[in-house]
Amino acid sequence: MPTHSYPPIAPDVAQKIANTIRFLSADGVQAANSGHPGLPMGCAEIATVLLTRFLRIDPKETTWWNRDRFILSAGHGSMLLYSMLALAGILSVDDLKQFRQLGSHTPGHPEFGDVPGVDFTAGPLGAGFAAAAGMALSERMLAEMYNTPKFDVMSHYTYVLMGDGCNMEGVALEAASLAGHLKLGKMIAFYDDNEISIEGNTSLAFTENVNARYEAMGWHVQDIDGHDMEAIANAILAAQGVEDKPSVIVAHTRIGRGAPNKEGKSSAHGEPLGEDELLAAKKNMGWSEEKFYVPSEVTKAMDGVRAQWAETRAKWDSDMESYEGSHKAIAKEFIRVMKGELPKSWKNATPEFAANEKIATRASGGKVMNAFGEILPELVGGAADLAPSTKTEIKTGKYPGFVGAGNYLGRNIHFGVREHAMGQMMNGMSAHGGFIPFSSTFFVFMDYMRPALRMAALAKFQQIFVMTHDSIFVGEDGPTHQPIEQIASIRCMPNVTLFRPCDANETAYAWQYAIAKQDGPTVLTLSRQNLPTLDRTQFAPAKDTLKGGYILELDPEGIAEIVLIASGSEVHLALTVAGILREAGRRVRVVSMPSLDLFKQQPEGYRRKVLPKRFKNRLVVEAGVRMGWEDILGDRGIFVGMEGFGASGPAEELAKKFGFTSEQILDKLAEADF
Amino acid sequence: MPTHSYPPIAPDVAQKIANTIRFLSADGVQAANSGHPGLPMGCAEIATVLLTRFLRIDPKETTWWNRDRFILSAGHGSMLLYSMLALAGILSVDDLKQFRQLGSHTPGHPEFGDVPGVDFTAGPLGAGFAAAAGMALSERMLAEMYNTPKFDVMSHYTYVLMGDGCNMEGVALEAASLAGHLKLGKMIAFYDDNEISIEGNTSLAFTENVNARYEAMGWHVQDIDGHDMEAIANAILAAQGVEDKPSVIVAHTRIGRGAPNKEGKSSAHGEPLGEDELLAAKKNMGWSEEKFYVPSEVTKAMDGVRAQWAETRAKWDSDMESYEGSHKAIAKEFIRVMKGELPKSWKNATPEFAANEKIATRASGGKVMNAFGEILPELVGGAADLAPSTKTEIKTGKYPGFVGAGNYLGRNIHFGVREHAMGQMMNGMSAHGGFIPFSSTFFVFMDYMRPALRMAALAKFQQIFVMTHDSIFVGEDGPTHQPIEQIASIRCMPNVTLFRPCDANETAYAWQYAIAKQDGPTVLTLSRQNLPTLDRTQFAPAKDTLKGGYILELDPEGIAEIVLIASGSEVHLALTVAGILREAGRRVRVVSMPSLDLFKQQPEGYRRKVLPKRFKNRLVVEAGVRMGWEDILGDRGIFVGMEGFGASGPAEELAKKFGFTSEQILDKLAEADF
Repeated sequence: MPTHSYPPIAPDVAQKIANTIRFLSADGVQAANSGHPGLPMGCAEIATVLLTRFLRIDPKETTWWNRDRFILSAGHGSMLLYSMLALAGILSVDDLKQFRQLGSHTPGHPEFGDVPGVDFTAGPLGAGFAAAAGMALSERMLAEMYNTPKFDVMSHYTYVLMGDGCNMEGVALEAASLAGHLKLGKMIAFYDDNEISIEGNTSLAFTENVNARYEAMGWHVQDIDGHDMEAIANAILAAQGVEDKPSVIVAHTRIGRGAPNKEGKSSAHGEPLGEDELLAAKKNMGWSEEKFYVPSEVTKAMDGVRAQWAETRAKWDSDMESYEGSHKAIAKEFIRVMKGELPKSWKNATPEFAANEKIATRASGGKVMNAFGEILPELVGGAADLAPSTKTEIKTGKYPGFVGAGNYLGRNIHFGVREHAMGQMMNGMSAHGGFIPFSSTFFVFMDYMRPALRMAALAKFQQIFVMTHDSIFVGEDGPTHQPIEQIASIRCMPNVTLFRPCDANETAYAWQYAIAKQDGPTVLTLSRQNLPTLDRTQFAPAKDTLKGGYILELDPEGIAEIVLIASGSEVHLALTVAGILREAGRRVRVVSMPSLDLFKQQPEGYRRKVLPKRFKNRLVVEAGVRMGWEDILGDRGIFVGMEGFGASGPAEELAKKFGFTSEQILDKLAEADF
Repeated sequence: MPTHSYPPIAPDVAQKIANTIRFLSADGVQAANSGHPGLPMGCAEIATVLLTRFLRIDPKETTWWNRDRFILSAGHGSMLLYSMLALAGILSVDDLKQFRQLGSHTPGHPEFGDVPGVDFTAGPLGAGFAAAAGMALSERMLAEMYNTPKFDVMSHYTYVLMGDGCNMEGVALEAASLAGHLKLGKMIAFYDDNEISIEGNTSLAFTENVNARYEAMGWHVQDIDGHDMEAIANAILAAQGVEDKPSVIVAHTRIGRGAPNKEGKSSAHGEPLGEDELLAAKKNMGWSEEKFYVPSEVTKAMDGVRAQWAETRAKWDSDMESYEGSHKAIAKEFIRVMKGELPKSWKNATPEFAANEKIATRASGGKVMNAFGEILPELVGGAADLAPSTKTEIKTGKYPGFVGAGNYLGRNIHFGVREHAMGQMMNGMSAHGGFIPFSSTFFVFMDYMRPALRMAALAKFQQIFVMTHDSIFVGEDGPTHQPIEQIASIRCMPNVTLFRPCDANETAYAWQYAIAKQDGPTVLTLSRQNLPTLDRTQFAPAKDTLKGGYILELDPEGIAEIVLIASGSEVHLALTVAGILREAGRRVRVVSMPSLDLFKQQPEGYRRKVLPKRFKNRLVVEAGVRMGWEDILGDRGIFVGMEGFGASGPAEELAKKFGFTSEQILDKLAEADF
């Protein structure tokens, strides 16, 4: 594995760069009268060494595929990153003056997509660290797929800076364990060990031996003075030299370094220093009182750094050109996946399932995934130790098999029972580029990874959450394993599309939608139990799934006394009820609603066509809570669903207990005088 | 610290007990044709040693306060626990035959409250381990509060059995770090290290050095053969002897032990052995083919164990009697808190706040909490390293101050940045008895601990979630820190009551409700920003908060052209709008809705009084998503809230950007022709 560094900058100039970062940050927080000066002042030397000697980036193209990634997992220290980006020429000093103002490029926490040069959204602690593991894994997997003996078109490091908060969070602990297992040697983490937390000294709650814990998790561990730039550089070089372990560099720092009355104290963490203390700090460090001061030597030194970056980038461009010439096929694929372009006619891979076969949507989902996997090498993922149950192993296409420790050619990942790290690592892979990542577990355990879903929704990361065992019909495992409120709890989150398909062919189109949706997450919630595959010569085409909801079965005369609306397994129940009603001479419409949120996004005309206002006798059946359906129900509608948690028992008995039988539904319709 | 064991049982009888547990479990799974035989068969020896030599319980009163707790964190192995409970005389063998049947005492996973002898609901991995840490902490805190030199009325151990799944979960990693920090010496965990996970050998995803990791986290670690009962007993004795560290006993076992073709394999984990393999296993272990076979020697030996338990219990009863005589005051308090009884007239402690003072509800919440804390020594809790921001330190009453490592007299806990472990530990404290636990963080980070909220709701644990920084009005910290969908995502969960009070006095009653609600969790979501305290001589009494929603400001004539409905900070906006409308001669009703779910539980008559059907011109304003309000809005109502994520900027500017100003609301009313 190649190591990388640029030559050192003269120590006095390097210290000036560090102080520039330190005081740009403190000035920014002061100007906003809000923010966190402590971390940037404490980590200015680390930032300087990374920026001037290690990070390979391209200020002109901040999304350059082979750039080194740098994630500030301790996102509250955002001014550190913004100051680095300003010195790099990606942001301007004027941007820094707008810190935390509405519409600025410098929001309170780093926002991916909104701020050029930000590699991952941070703020929720631990998330960035886990995402960094996903990025480091992305680099290794892409390198295995696309590098050649002569061309390392993918060969970057992933750096991450974390605080004690990140180190306490479960998601980071899970990710650390998995990154160590996977031997992600090009992940290099800095732990800003300043011994200060919000409630006081970290010794109040955090006395584990962090170094020994990382060693136990398979990491290379170093301890350094975080203000000694030579030590920092040497530690990074040593970390680069250890290829079979991720590295953590425990950097002992002083929070708010330089502030005479706040350095080393909790009070430096999360509020402006105050004008007096800021001035005193500048004086203390021999710095100009001028706000947002950037000395000319610093500008000059950064010009030199930028020239080095340009050289690195030019070399890669020239390599790419040769690579494209000599390795046409893989180069084409590499470029396609990194651009996030889908192959032409990819939708033709959408499988079609024969009518009437009984198959659980988790099983048909597995087949659909494999059908797309066949033509999409970028589709990668895994489960939280449930792949045999969630049916989420890709066995087809290029690069099949499992990624493992030191073996990165594959497209399946054993995540272990680590839902939260799985979700954030896959967000990291999405942010990295080159992949369409999926993650999988039982639907009820979505709760364990909810922050990862929110991160994907907020930062517009594509991730496909394959959530099986979608309802009480899980059966005997009981209420801890039966989702009830999960559907509603996801439908209320902006920028998430949730599908609960009723059969194999709806599942196929739900997957198609998920692959096409590149600006946010899709949740596919699939059944454990078998469901019949509808005969689409009798019913509306499955492609209508892409509208979220559609008339599955129209009354022959196009009018309806009763409209039955359902999702997932309950669609079949609705069809049974409709059949009985029709035999009794009633006019019934059945609407399949695989994605209520997508349906609500359709033009009003279409929605009215499916659910005309005048058809007020509506019954919705879904094995979940009512919330979210009210607009569909109107003031006369009946909801058949769950009011409390489930129970342990065979699925058929649960159906009776909770009212999901045709007899019970017919009774309700009669009671309501529909 | 006293250690405890009963004398050993003859090895051959002990082995028969183990095999009884092994095959009762396998028979139960086979009869249900569903479940997990692997763990019970692999852990039968551990269960035997615990049951016969260590656990002090009372089959006649399974909720005896000073019983040893035993939590099967690997809850899928429920038949192990049920078999133990059957041998203990708490369940019957007939109960075992009903495994996983609807309405049985033996549901798929152990359910607290539904199954006598189950100390905690398990199934979601890692949760039980974290809860065990909470129980061990409960024991230490109660011991410090109530034991005397002569009487150890609280002096039990907390045992927990976990698998590799629990050990991979972030919640358990967080809890392990905190339990080690807190030196919870009476927590003794077994790690069933069978090297098998669902996807295959644990080496596929879990290669950290678990022993070294626990050592780094401050634990006493032992490695044993999990089928060697002498080794198991010696390890527990050694663990009891180490008083300043929690202990983990890494027990190397064979999953499905005894099954000739499945032992040591993933296939033993989660499905019945099958009749043939079950018979072969019985033959292999020299066991009777009879289903649910309990040899007479086993029955006899268990009679002896029960006699020992009875003696232990009698001794405690007699100690309690003496203690009650000699330590009247603390005995009375001890009994009261263990029974979960509130002191008479406790509601009189509800504080009243003077009108017009501007105070954030997080700040008034802190005052309310302290007012109740003054009279309720059982009110204990803490924050995930945010107490100075969430204002959740109890400084009043008995036992003030912080619990720390080796110092358990106090009622505040520094959880560190470990939201998920905090929530589950507090569930453990609630299940333990003796406490009304609260936990606290920023509302948006509720997502990190959502499984703990669900556990509380499902198992009916009282826990008060104090969630501050309740909306976009957090301001500059930006969208990662601004709750949008969190309110809806909680309102859809059964058995949770969420309050978003509009001022200090609503906050007081919300807290009162939370303390009174003993059969489930309450979420209090509180503002970061200052809010005026309403003058209750002008408005309805704050006590109406207990109805969830109420007419805050009635039009003098009791009728209304427009009804404005709001929660939290937006109530003040609604009042401003109402004022302007009234000046323009309009008739307006303002409804404060601090708890929409509680309002929906009110009798229809009351609901109709507050929101008469004929008043259709309704506007709801809440700084969150619309979902959940549809029934209130009806078909004409206007919702002013959030449609997407927030943004970073000063709160006043966000108010404008997202439509939360009186001008914008008046425009909307005009547009709608209200």
